[in-house]
Amino acid sequence: MGRWEPNARGRLMQAAFALYGERGFEQTTVAEIAERAGLTERTFFRHFADKREVLFAGADALRELLVSTVAKAPGSLAPIDAAAAGLEAAGALIQEGGELARQRQAIIASSAELQERELIKLASLAAALAEALRRRGVEDPAASLTAEAGIAVFKVAFERYVEETDQQDLPLLIRESLDELKAVTAGR
Amino acid sequence: MGRWEPNARGRLMQAAFALYGERGFEQTTVAEIAERAGLTERTFFRHFADKREVLFAGADALRELLVSTVAKAPGSLAPIDAAAAGLEAAGALIQEGGELARQRQAIIASSAELQERELIKLASLAAALAEALRRRGVEDPAASLTAEAGIAVFKVAFERYVEETDQQDLPLLIRESLDELKAVTAGR
Repeated sequence: MGRWEPNARGRLMQAAFALYGERGFEQTTVAEIAERAGLTERTFFRHFADKREVLFAGADALRELLVSTVAKAPGSLAPIDAAAAGLEAAGALIQEGGELARQRQAIIASSAELQERELIKLASLAAALAEALRRRGVEDPAASLTAEAGIAVFKVAFERYVEETDQQDLPLLIRESLDELKAVTAGR
Repeated sequence: MGRWEPNARGRLMQAAFALYGERGFEQTTVAEIAERAGLTERTFFRHFADKREVLFAGADALRELLVSTVAKAPGSLAPIDAAAAGLEAAGALIQEGGELARQRQAIIASSAELQERELIKLASLAAALAEALRRRGVEDPAASLTAEAGIAVFKVAFERYVEETDQQDLPLLIRESLDELKAVTAGR
């Protein structure tokens, strides 16, 4: 790395999200993002492969937290509850980012390309969750089903979180969404 | 249409699937597909926008059958069971295509681009299923959750169907997969 840039990554993300919101994702250039953040393009490319990746930069940390929380959950927990523990931890991490999650969602909704990338991210989260459950001794198809159902719960809760701006507690929405899934699968 | 080509669409699909399997999707041209089917490129483009769309040509019929079956299901059925009826009907339609579904899946697994397109197709099936449930009076988030969970059930059942070549009954696998989901969400 060259000269020290305090919180360059965070500044670049904030600048990018603001510009995507103001001008649209397609119309924003990396040069503009760097300028808004008071940094150089070179610094941008030290942190992100391209302007799209700014929006998906948090995916690895989210997946790692999900997987490690499922791994550490008490062995006595049923698979669906171990999955829920991981998803609630991921929800808490998203919530720490404050308004970024809502800004991000609005940007993604504006572009078919970004929506596709988001679907891939969710599919990769589901695969990582299924693998984490298998490592707890859950067999297939239960592991895959629990993971897919868990991601469905997460997705629906996250949609409520970004739509209902008075609702700030994403882990709570995830628990409610899981209770709702339990009710609908029980035929209620 | 020009001169009458008996079952041109089916012949083109069979030729395309065979060539994708033999040479790979990327390496196959529309000219080769038309030649193998004993038809012209012009006939190909009367039926399909491009070589990728041959693999997704059945998606509309699948979605329509899913939606209409959910609409026609007895009003007494719980949302999850109305969804299951639609998914089983879709499964029966896939099964009628015989080996095409397994060939298709192997081709899709070979290409990241095709996998992305498949994720989009599944997301669009989930959205159509949620909308069909709303038309039955199911409210959100129950409608979205039931739809997402239903598509998860379908996906896991379909994966078993293409992997376990001795298992020919896709609607049965869908019912089993739903029972498994009911068991995992009940914490078993």
